[in-house]
Amino acid sequence: MRILFDALGGDNAPLEIVKGAVLAAEEMDIDISFVGNEIEIEKILKELNYNKKVEIINATEKIENNEEPAYAIRRKKNSSTVLGLKSLKEDKVDAFVSAGSTGALLAGGLFITKRIDNVKRAALPTELPSLSGGTLVIDSGANMDCDADLLLQFALMGKTYLQGIKGIKNPRVGLLNVGTEEGKGNALTKEAFTLLKNSDLNFVGNIEARDVTMGKCDLVVCDGFVGNVLLKNTEGVAKFLMHTIQSEIKKAELSKETLLEVGSLFSKMSKNLDYKEVGGTILLGLKQVVVKAHGDSDSIAIKNAAKAAVMALNNNIIETLERDFKEKI
Amino acid sequence: MRILFDALGGDNAPLEIVKGAVLAAEEMDIDISFVGNEIEIEKILKELNYNKKVEIINATEKIENNEEPAYAIRRKKNSSTVLGLKSLKEDKVDAFVSAGSTGALLAGGLFITKRIDNVKRAALPTELPSLSGGTLVIDSGANMDCDADLLLQFALMGKTYLQGIKGIKNPRVGLLNVGTEEGKGNALTKEAFTLLKNSDLNFVGNIEARDVTMGKCDLVVCDGFVGNVLLKNTEGVAKFLMHTIQSEIKKAELSKETLLEVGSLFSKMSKNLDYKEVGGTILLGLKQVVVKAHGDSDSIAIKNAAKAAVMALNNNIIETLERDFKEKI
Repeated sequence: MRILFDALGGDNAPLEIVKGAVLAAEEMDIDISFVGNEIEIEKILKELNYNKKVEIINATEKIENNEEPAYAIRRKKNSSTVLGLKSLKEDKVDAFVSAGSTGALLAGGLFITKRIDNVKRAALPTELPSLSGGTLVIDSGANMDCDADLLLQFALMGKTYLQGIKGIKNPRVGLLNVGTEEGKGNALTKEAFTLLKNSDLNFVGNIEARDVTMGKCDLVVCDGFVGNVLLKNTEGVAKFLMHTIQSEIKKAELSKETLLEVGSLFSKMSKNLDYKEVGGTILLGLKQVVVKAHGDSDSIAIKNAAKAAVMALNNNIIETLERDFKEKI
Repeated sequence: MRILFDALGGDNAPLEIVKGAVLAAEEMDIDISFVGNEIEIEKILKELNYNKKVEIINATEKIENNEEPAYAIRRKKNSSTVLGLKSLKEDKVDAFVSAGSTGALLAGGLFITKRIDNVKRAALPTELPSLSGGTLVIDSGANMDCDADLLLQFALMGKTYLQGIKGIKNPRVGLLNVGTEEGKGNALTKEAFTLLKNSDLNFVGNIEARDVTMGKCDLVVCDGFVGNVLLKNTEGVAKFLMHTIQSEIKKAELSKETLLEVGSLFSKMSKNLDYKEVGGTILLGLKQVVVKAHGDSDSIAIKNAAKAAVMALNNNIIETLERDFKEKI
């Protein structure tokens, strides 16, 4: 099994990307390849004393986050994103891991590796921490304006993902809404409710945003705009609360002993809440395994993103989706 | 100045409502009236030794949260919501405070007290805690499907509210979106961006959900579906984090001294984050002052909701909105 890493994507490229790939190779039985600046990558590998054979595709261009994705994919033929996805398309590697622009990765995925038959749009699932261990939000930002059919497709893809990656047999699917009763919401969620209710999914009904982290379902379905708001707000509130707690602790004039005890408690907690421990997310709906890692990713996050790719391959996520969507339509 | 309280609305009615009204009367120079079960209200007032003259409108019906608002308003003519709003409409009182169904209060407000000329829809502003002291989210749940014109109106109403209630001279207005760059978002936010940019407002551009609590603007504009998700997610994440912190503290086997110190810190912090300290929210766009208090409100929250009503009256919020919207069109 060979995983290709985008050594130009993300804030900490190439160092943390290469480090993370090496960690992944040491931990799992995989071969690693890179797409990026060949000289820099080789230099880092040497510093890390990594002596196994590594394939490197030299890439001279990088797609930035502020570029219009579809335009950038068409124009920057020598970008790590385009060259990486082409290598995947040609089956030279089994999966592609990138911490670069999400939009470019999605657009490139759709243009180059293509969609699974009958899948209308690719979606981005993201796991949020919750009292039940984690709740998957789909779509978390790939699709801005959605119709009810799309939301049903997101739910179906999310179900396959959770079965394959998390081993959850019959995931509880909730529709993100402003109230729990049927009939609540905007035009989109009202229509999606009916579709989900009439599907074979384990649909538990509407779920309010306050209950997402309470773990009342395994899968939360929403359009990408709302999903993105949910995700980023979770990040912001956590940051705000940590800030408040720290400033209260400062004001409280605690004893030295208490400060020490509280301090170690906090570093442990921040680690629990750290997205880096979760790793990357698979772009669902594409014909091949493309994993998006957070732009901030360090080597641990990259290693975990590679782990997600390996799990998707070992559990035949793509094949299952292809079968499911063939049968559905 | 006379404030009317809905003694049938909310989870803690009538006791906490009556208590809160009495607290408000003691703290501010106002007269209080009630709409609700006359016998119960009089009994509570007696127990509280409140001897000033109080007007009570007897109401025999209550509108529940799960009732279809417009239908309930038309059918339940003797509900506290309908009788309260009628009394307001007839200028027998200056403001109406209710912890009952938000939908019914809005529908009733629109039917009975009516909209300000040129205001298309009434909106619900809610203040979220933030590093700058507080950020107003408008609309936070009154309007599910919105167009860009509506979002502009929400921003204009929110500005007047912040000027009048908070004394912020030129509030910074942000558009809730999935990225900060112009051109990001769904069809609605793309169009709203242009309208806001071309308005007289102090528009600071798109704001991502992660920055709402960071206090980067005073006013966040969004449709009511997204606003409701933002608000309820904030509540859920705070709850989740507190839960995590408490369970970590338990596991940490802290010394008795530390536990005591940390315990008192936490009760102080929870108080800081408590919405009850903020009080009620004014339904913006109506011709009279209607304040919605949280369904969970205790007497302190009701008192603070009354305070919001008094500030709206003292600062001529309604008259300012009437003038602004007359000039705008």
